[in-house]
Amino acid sequence: MALKKKPVTGMKDILPAEMQLRDYVTGLIKDTYKSFGFSPIETPCVEHIENLCSKQGGDNEKLIFKIMKRGEKLNLETAETEADLTDSGLRYDLTVPLSRFYSNNANDLPTPFKALQIGSVWRADRPQRGRFRQFVQCDIDILGEASCLAEIELILATTTLLGKLNFKGFKVRINERRILKAMAQFCGFPEEQFDLVFIILDKMDKIGWDGVKAELVEAGFAQESVDKYVAMFNEMESAQDSLAYLEEKLSGVLEADVIDNLRMIKASVEATKASEFDLVFDPTLVRGMSYYTGTIFEIEMAEFGSSVAGGGRYDKMIGKFTGKDTPACGFSIGFERIVTILMEQGFEIPGASNKKAFLIEKNMPAEKLCEVLKEAKAEREAGNQVLVSLMNKNKKFQKEQLTKEGYTEFKEFFNR
Amino acid sequence: MALKKKPVTGMKDILPAEMQLRDYVTGLIKDTYKSFGFSPIETPCVEHIENLCSKQGGDNEKLIFKIMKRGEKLNLETAETEADLTDSGLRYDLTVPLSRFYSNNANDLPTPFKALQIGSVWRADRPQRGRFRQFVQCDIDILGEASCLAEIELILATTTLLGKLNFKGFKVRINERRILKAMAQFCGFPEEQFDLVFIILDKMDKIGWDGVKAELVEAGFAQESVDKYVAMFNEMESAQDSLAYLEEKLSGVLEADVIDNLRMIKASVEATKASEFDLVFDPTLVRGMSYYTGTIFEIEMAEFGSSVAGGGRYDKMIGKFTGKDTPACGFSIGFERIVTILMEQGFEIPGASNKKAFLIEKNMPAEKLCEVLKEAKAEREAGNQVLVSLMNKNKKFQKEQLTKEGYTEFKEFFNR
Repeated sequence: MALKKKPVTGMKDILPAEMQLRDYVTGLIKDTYKSFGFSPIETPCVEHIENLCSKQGGDNEKLIFKIMKRGEKLNLETAETEADLTDSGLRYDLTVPLSRFYSNNANDLPTPFKALQIGSVWRADRPQRGRFRQFVQCDIDILGEASCLAEIELILATTTLLGKLNFKGFKVRINERRILKAMAQFCGFPEEQFDLVFIILDKMDKIGWDGVKAELVEAGFAQESVDKYVAMFNEMESAQDSLAYLEEKLSGVLEADVIDNLRMIKASVEATKASEFDLVFDPTLVRGMSYYTGTIFEIEMAEFGSSVAGGGRYDKMIGKFTGKDTPACGFSIGFERIVTILMEQGFEIPGASNKKAFLIEKNMPAEKLCEVLKEAKAEREAGNQVLVSLMNKNKKFQKEQLTKEGYTEFKEFFNR
Repeated sequence: MALKKKPVTGMKDILPAEMQLRDYVTGLIKDTYKSFGFSPIETPCVEHIENLCSKQGGDNEKLIFKIMKRGEKLNLETAETEADLTDSGLRYDLTVPLSRFYSNNANDLPTPFKALQIGSVWRADRPQRGRFRQFVQCDIDILGEASCLAEIELILATTTLLGKLNFKGFKVRINERRILKAMAQFCGFPEEQFDLVFIILDKMDKIGWDGVKAELVEAGFAQESVDKYVAMFNEMESAQDSLAYLEEKLSGVLEADVIDNLRMIKASVEATKASEFDLVFDPTLVRGMSYYTGTIFEIEMAEFGSSVAGGGRYDKMIGKFTGKDTPACGFSIGFERIVTILMEQGFEIPGASNKKAFLIEKNMPAEKLCEVLKEAKAEREAGNQVLVSLMNKNKKFQKEQLTKEGYTEFKEFFNR
């Protein structure tokens, strides 16, 4: 039987040119985040199906690649539903596994714990251009730090990294789930419907305020609430200081530390940032995951039309494993998005070493070959990359191929 | 429902100390192999079930983690066997995916192509100490190179790497599947039973020559063949030059280039090696995988009681995908084994950067915090790792924890 040459649907082979860029970006991420005191960790790609289907992952739970039970545990005759056939699945993000990891290992970790994870995740999404079913996520998380020092360090670390990749003029948008909730409550939306309100608010970019109003009314919310809600956003926009506006307007509804925290984050980040960007409070920022409990943030690059990083505080998730809440805050960069942008820009990897190709004639006697190998050894020890390869019949084509692979020097060796 | 804290059976969480060592080894592998002209590539962790079950993987095919079909394709009512439920699985090695990769992308790759892969593989083995169901493999392969230059470069690259990790006194054992076959044929074993002969020969280390004889006879082979076979090994052992012995003895049975190739490999490797080791011809070396067609080799470290690397030539596998044979030769190092040995040795990562912890008092005013963050920024830009963290109530314990994480300097900052 002939075997299948293409990768499985929605996944891709990574060729050397892209791989070298990915390795470079990965190295830069590790160096930068380590300099901020983040420690690399890793969890298995396979997770318990119970943990993956625990309602932490929102819609991603519908996209799980499920792994079949093995041996006697797999019983087709007694199996009634899909759930009877599976005991685990491929992780769809790094946050659920991190929470499990922390609950399993907290005794062996410092408090607070600053984690760095780079790893593949899998989602059985409908295949489409530029989106793959296996992709790399890169997360930093601070566990056990309740103060906004967590947010400050996460934002500084992530923006420092983007600066090192020569990204300029990006914008960090920040909001608070507690502000979103307090505003919705203040305007009289029923609490059990907050998520629907936020889903509609999230479309503001695309449908404008009139669209938001229309959709909220269509969803059955009271006209009075809707008007009051949208008016607040408009008033905030025209206020000189939107945080001061909220502080006054929501006094008594909003917890006291929320506004102070945001001010502290903004002041500290702007005074100490290592790259050029604006940090702006954006009351329309929602972010999808329902596990967020406090600050949420996103990095936007206007020229690339989409966010390249996002995160927030999720103080309730680890408690789902341990029974005891642990403050947690994380920031995830869009690794695949960043690699794609860099490739499109024709990004050149700085400090790449010299690539030399030694082409040798066929049937070279051992003694002569040893001379070539010794020369290659000396070059390699001097930090160069040396390919030793037989000359092909079509030497011109061979050199063209190697030039495409980044080889800049060629040396030929003959038997006599 | 409480969630599960432990990783799934047989897989493990990797904590920072081990992860830092793994990252160091990975970096060294990439640098060393790149200096030999190997290009990093990556394939998806998920492979077509047809490719995984194509009889290339030997016993590993029994250990596949199979992934369930999704959506309408999964039909419990019509499914009769396990095979009806699955369309893909997690790869159990990197060789089958590499062959698929090469057959899919050969037009975009130079000839010969030198590939470097580092990635996780999965096998549902019986869980046991030190063996995990997800583990990292690290392979180099040369595709499209029929001459023994492939073997020479693979052995030089791998032994150079081991030397950089301070491993000394290891031994590279080399043999040829064609010698194994010619000897078996010469002694009159039936060809379709060669694999069984080799499986028994492979036990020689443990059961000795008497044991091998007994098992061969018990398996039903002719006493005459068995005696002739074992006598040859004994004669080779006492011969001054076992290759010369074989050359003469198997003249007409063994292909002409086999012995010359082995001589060329030995001469070239010994004259140009970058670390201390012996390369020895070992006619009892078998290696399990049936896909090998030529040279096979293994690196043994007596003090650790097991092989740390192995490989060989498999000139027929890529043809299974493309219909056209392509010479191929690879060497895989036991990444997990090497990491375990280094951890047991208390290996210290060379050139690790300074780790400093800045401990700050609670509720620090923004202005004061910015001073601390600026100092941290300067330290980070100077190449140090700086953790900025709130002082815990039990500062002594906090410092102990951080010392365990490798922090050597502490600086405290107070609000006044």
